[in-house]
Amino acid sequence: MADAPLVPSPDADSAALTPRLLAGDRLALGRAITLVENRPDQAVLLLERLHERLGHAVRIGFTGPPGVGKSTLIAALAQRLRSEKKTVGVIAVDPTSPFTGGALLGDRIRMTEVAADPEVFVRSMATRGNLGGLARATFLAVDLLDAFGKDWVLVETVGVGQSEIDVTRGTDLTVVVLSPESGDTIQTMKSGLLESADCVAINKADRPGADALAADLEQSYHLSVRSANPPPIVRCQARDGTGVDAVREAIDSVLSRISSTNGLASRRALAWEAKIAAILRSQIVESCLESPGARSRIRSSVTASLARGASPYAGIEGLLDELLQRP
Amino acid sequence: MADAPLVPSPDADSAALTPRLLAGDRLALGRAITLVENRPDQAVLLLERLHERLGHAVRIGFTGPPGVGKSTLIAALAQRLRSEKKTVGVIAVDPTSPFTGGALLGDRIRMTEVAADPEVFVRSMATRGNLGGLARATFLAVDLLDAFGKDWVLVETVGVGQSEIDVTRGTDLTVVVLSPESGDTIQTMKSGLLESADCVAINKADRPGADALAADLEQSYHLSVRSANPPPIVRCQARDGTGVDAVREAIDSVLSRISSTNGLASRRALAWEAKIAAILRSQIVESCLESPGARSRIRSSVTASLARGASPYAGIEGLLDELLQRP
Repeated sequence: MADAPLVPSPDADSAALTPRLLAGDRLALGRAITLVENRPDQAVLLLERLHERLGHAVRIGFTGPPGVGKSTLIAALAQRLRSEKKTVGVIAVDPTSPFTGGALLGDRIRMTEVAADPEVFVRSMATRGNLGGLARATFLAVDLLDAFGKDWVLVETVGVGQSEIDVTRGTDLTVVVLSPESGDTIQTMKSGLLESADCVAINKADRPGADALAADLEQSYHLSVRSANPPPIVRCQARDGTGVDAVREAIDSVLSRISSTNGLASRRALAWEAKIAAILRSQIVESCLESPGARSRIRSSVTASLARGASPYAGIEGLLDELLQRP
Repeated sequence: MADAPLVPSPDADSAALTPRLLAGDRLALGRAITLVENRPDQAVLLLERLHERLGHAVRIGFTGPPGVGKSTLIAALAQRLRSEKKTVGVIAVDPTSPFTGGALLGDRIRMTEVAADPEVFVRSMATRGNLGGLARATFLAVDLLDAFGKDWVLVETVGVGQSEIDVTRGTDLTVVVLSPESGDTIQTMKSGLLESADCVAINKADRPGADALAADLEQSYHLSVRSANPPPIVRCQARDGTGVDAVREAIDSVLSRISSTNGLASRRALAWEAKIAAILRSQIVESCLESPGARSRIRSSVTASLARGASPYAGIEGLLDELLQRP
């Protein structure tokens, strides 16, 4: 009888999870996503093993200002996809999302209902940990859901911070969700959000201002570099399901357009670059700045500057060379 | 007559701004903060020159979930401070803040009123640019407001992402703002927010649930590592000004307690470390990952992996060594 090795192999966890994930074990999927948050190196090893299983899922990013109803739309769309017998994974990166516990009770009940379906896997990503760790964790989690066999993976981000915008680079297409109250089209334009939209959903479209918002958007796109190829602008009321079919159809039409021009493959290659860059960024920050040695070096430099009445800012160049071990 | 040099000196901008800032020129302050966003290297040079002027301002961070009324409380507190003839600077890092254009019109009017006072300088920080750039920009802007002579600098963050939590590390003390609707004390505890609170303000305290929230918080602190030293928990209704004096007094009492134990100096030394680390992080990411060479190296590695059916994840270790120029 073989004993368990005294020193576990570095990828013991990921090795044990692989067959369970391949067998469709939901508990293993939850475990694997926890690995993403706590042991990203292990999650990367796991995904290396599962590489052949990647590429099945349609990955849609949903982004927009807080309070426009992104989660409600995702929940409604997930229900619609389930009625087509598609399996669905949801990753919520938005800290204001009801999926993550940040919003009104009414919304949360709907999320709970969707999440109770065993073929819908919902997970929110914690925002703790180093900067960039969020994008890394999200990318790895989306890949795990894909490898697990989900047909669709829906990712919710609040679309304001850079890390959240980065996240949408890892998806096949981006739906920007707005509502009449979110107002400030100009503000949204300025944020760069609308430039990268593949589809715009105006939620709560029964409220005043929806027509004006739609007209504004059409005008803005007409005057922009995207005048030849504006995204579809669809109205919906996700709370009662009105217009969710139209959103579904808009996504389909964009997907077929992209696929017919081989655009999906090139988007996925770009998504790979975004994923690899996000992981490298986290690792570089961890290795250069978050080691005990780096922390104590920064501390001693600051202390020395302050002690002689100098600005700690003046020591930055030297610290940079040291931390990067430049000559 | 001396001609302007053909090649401007690398710190021409910061050199020209120094005397204007020292003379209290508001336009120069605005210009300097723009430098923070677009030319952080210049802003660092500027702050090196202004080092002696740093340390005057009281720096207070306000953080909490979206929608609790952080901006309204900041506006009310700024008005209170103005009535004491203190000058005030406000930096809004919260993307959902009415200061940055993300909320209801009613709130925004109040902000506009406060911002119209020439002794109150309000600026929102853009969230574009590289990860960590936000923390860097905020720290530099707060220092500029201090060097400019503002008595108080109030910083608003949404307190959910890591970069936002980082920002509060650069302030003298942190006020966590909650409201009865923000509910989920547990969620807030989990986010680590309450651990670092120096003061908790329960805003919209006239609404149902305020007592339960206060009791919950007291109980949580009683059971926590901070049982010997819980933060003051203050109720207010920032919209009509009720309780703003109590918040002001709570801040004062915390400040005197900290100052009497020499805690302020050690907090400011830690804040310096946080600032220097944030700047280093941005610069390391820029130099290792965002150069054209780094981008094209990542691209070619991904392309090569995909072409031979391998996982691009497998190339990460090698890329890491290359980008850090490790042997």
